[in-house]
Amino acid sequence: MRSPTITLLTDFGLSDHFVGTMKGVILGLCPTAQVVDISHQVTPYEVTEAAFVLAQAYRFFPKKTVHVVVIDPGVGTSRRPIVAEAAGQYFIAPDNGVFSMIFAQEKHKVRVITAEKYFLKPLSQTFHGRDVFAPIAAHLAKGLPPAKLGKTIDDYLRLHFEKPNRTARRGWTGTILKQDHFGNLITNFPAADFPNLHERPFELTVGMQQVTRLARSYADCRPGELIVIAGSSGYYEVSASQGSAAKALGCGAGAPCELRIF
Amino acid sequence: MRSPTITLLTDFGLSDHFVGTMKGVILGLCPTAQVVDISHQVTPYEVTEAAFVLAQAYRFFPKKTVHVVVIDPGVGTSRRPIVAEAAGQYFIAPDNGVFSMIFAQEKHKVRVITAEKYFLKPLSQTFHGRDVFAPIAAHLAKGLPPAKLGKTIDDYLRLHFEKPNRTARRGWTGTILKQDHFGNLITNFPAADFPNLHERPFELTVGMQQVTRLARSYADCRPGELIVIAGSSGYYEVSASQGSAAKALGCGAGAPCELRIF
Amino acid sequence: MRSPTITLLTDFGLSDHFVGTMKGVILGLCPTAQVVDISHQVTPYEVTEAAFVLAQAYRFFPKKTVHVVVIDPGVGTSRRPIVAEAAGQYFIAPDNGVFSMIFAQEKHKVRVITAEKYFLKPLSQTFHGRDVFAPIAAHLAKGLPPAKLGKTIDDYLRLHFEKPNRTARRGWTGTILKQDHFGNLITNFPAADFPNLHERPFELTVGMQQVTRLARSYADCRPGELIVIAGSSGYYEVSASQGSAAKALGCGAGAPCELRIF
Repeated sequence: MRSPTITLLTDFGLSDHFVGTMKGVILGLCPTAQVVDISHQVTPYEVTEAAFVLAQAYRFFPKKTVHVVVIDPGVGTSRRPIVAEAAGQYFIAPDNGVFSMIFAQEKHKVRVITAEKYFLKPLSQTFHGRDVFAPIAAHLAKGLPPAKLGKTIDDYLRLHFEKPNRTARRGWTGTILKQDHFGNLITNFPAADFPNLHERPFELTVGMQQVTRLARSYADCRPGELIVIAGSSGYYEVSASQGSAAKALGCGAGAPCELRIF
Repeated sequence: MRSPTITLLTDFGLSDHFVGTMKGVILGLCPTAQVVDISHQVTPYEVTEAAFVLAQAYRFFPKKTVHVVVIDPGVGTSRRPIVAEAAGQYFIAPDNGVFSMIFAQEKHKVRVITAEKYFLKPLSQTFHGRDVFAPIAAHLAKGLPPAKLGKTIDDYLRLHFEKPNRTARRGWTGTILKQDHFGNLITNFPAADFPNLHERPFELTVGMQQVTRLARSYADCRPGELIVIAGSSGYYEVSASQGSAAKALGCGAGAPCELRIF
Repeated sequence: MRSPTITLLTDFGLSDHFVGTMKGVILGLCPTAQVVDISHQVTPYEVTEAAFVLAQAYRFFPKKTVHVVVIDPGVGTSRRPIVAEAAGQYFIAPDNGVFSMIFAQEKHKVRVITAEKYFLKPLSQTFHGRDVFAPIAAHLAKGLPPAKLGKTIDDYLRLHFEKPNRTARRGWTGTILKQDHFGNLITNFPAADFPNLHERPFELTVGMQQVTRLARSYADCRPGELIVIAGSSGYYEVSASQGSAAKALGCGAGAPCELRIF
């Protein structure tokens, strides 16, 4: 007996019936599914934040995992549901750009989901997580080939926030992708693209402050000291050892940041 | 091998060991159970809120699912544990009215749970979720017939909050059942009972304001505009498209609302 | 087919990908695992709080359960990962004292985890929950003998916060171990060690107030009344029936408390 894995990533929070109801639909169709919550605390309607969270997690899941991402301010409009195949896994969401970071990293094929026979009826105007995405995920987990869901498309939405922009010979402007639970600020500067921070003086401006020290681990620093560290995310992160960099700098997701290397 | 489903709905929050401990008890007795959290963020002691959340979710779960609902300000008193059979599923809770909305919709049979041999010993005075409800749920999931738990009763508690009261020829007084994570205010006006809102001018008073527009989806409205919409709940909901109606109107669960149709 | 149980207890919160990613790693190695969240809302870096939460929960889990506890301010330093065997179960954590309450109650054997071949590569400096503890848990759940992970050690860290200190013939100084979701304040006074509170007048000082009444259940008291009760934790707890003792007394975890028996 297979135990296919389905993950859920939404902005639904945990105080309503939304997430539980989606799991009920899934288990009704695929009783052996392992349903894993990535997070339901994405800031409401923040597609970029969800894109980052998913991009961090998907590589660690088994082949054939079905990832369901419902950040859906346009629910009830004509925005299309899509299914993407990438890295041997499946990805389902409204076509809102939430898979952009995966598309930047992996070969992929995208289909528009038109096979309405797999939707719950009557289809609500406001809860497609339950009526569209949960049953599609369950059918994929049970082995339905994606080709049964709809035709491949090329004009799906891709957003570009996964790298900073070069604005000078040794200057880049980027953004904070996420503030994590510990107050670390995750930039969109990939550590692999800026290896020479270890060798040269630099200045990373976030909020009103300059951070100039690169640490190899939190243990290297005084409690509360502001540092740059190559995080487990693959990006440079601004941290305050055993404290909150977000509080210290007064900023969070979406804030700009600037790097200068001397 | 069966994978019976057990759901949990409590006001225990997620910062304590309570929910995890209940799952430990369940898995010790029924290792193959699929345990699904409906929510643990019900406002402490708010039976009405839990009743609404459960009523939204249960229909989407497989037959034989065991729903456990522990909102229990009277733990340690003589209030009775009950098990209800309805819609091909099982429902376990203290006898506090939390199944009232299900009883209004489904044929049902209710038993008082007296078979103390299934309880954990020693029975605590303060944590019947662990000592009573978790083990009973596990035994039901494993196939124990409800008749082994106790006798049927007729005098279980039923509350009536699932519909508004008519207070004039074209006037009704209702209540806000829940404020959801997005700030939508869910009224107790069933959309099916008020179909002519689509045809006639109306005024729904919530907080200090009148909402007079019915929308078919969020896409029909300007961001922040206050609308009435037939939500996925089956009830009319007051929404502020891409914003929080609860914030805009300054009210939440339990607030009164009045409908006039002209 | 076995369904081994793995529990997770962390200070990671639920808004990031951390917990979901750990579950992905686990299910990739052990697809039939039942993964149970004890809590991810431990106050960041608070080892004592996690120790208490785990000590409350573990006894209710099946034999062979693998408990993973990641409260890890020292991640990236040379602090050692350990695996403990106690009560027929497995316990994995950084060597930070988080198993102290279990060690006080159960026979136990502790090993340092040195078998790096089970770690994910490349090993990050900041996320050992994913790279070390999740894969080790999955391998144990699949049946790997702990002896394969490393040698037994005696010099693991033990903290002593599980009992109050006697400071006078009839006076003890203790601490609040945790504030629960309902605002109950759980002391470190084991009810079994102070049985005569039922027979003699006493005074428990918390915050600026004295609590002098012992109740057998919440039903015995007026709403909001401050009482001492032998909680399901096994410790005396300070409660305000249907209210928050923490709010009423203005204190929480870590606050001192003093008991005098007359």
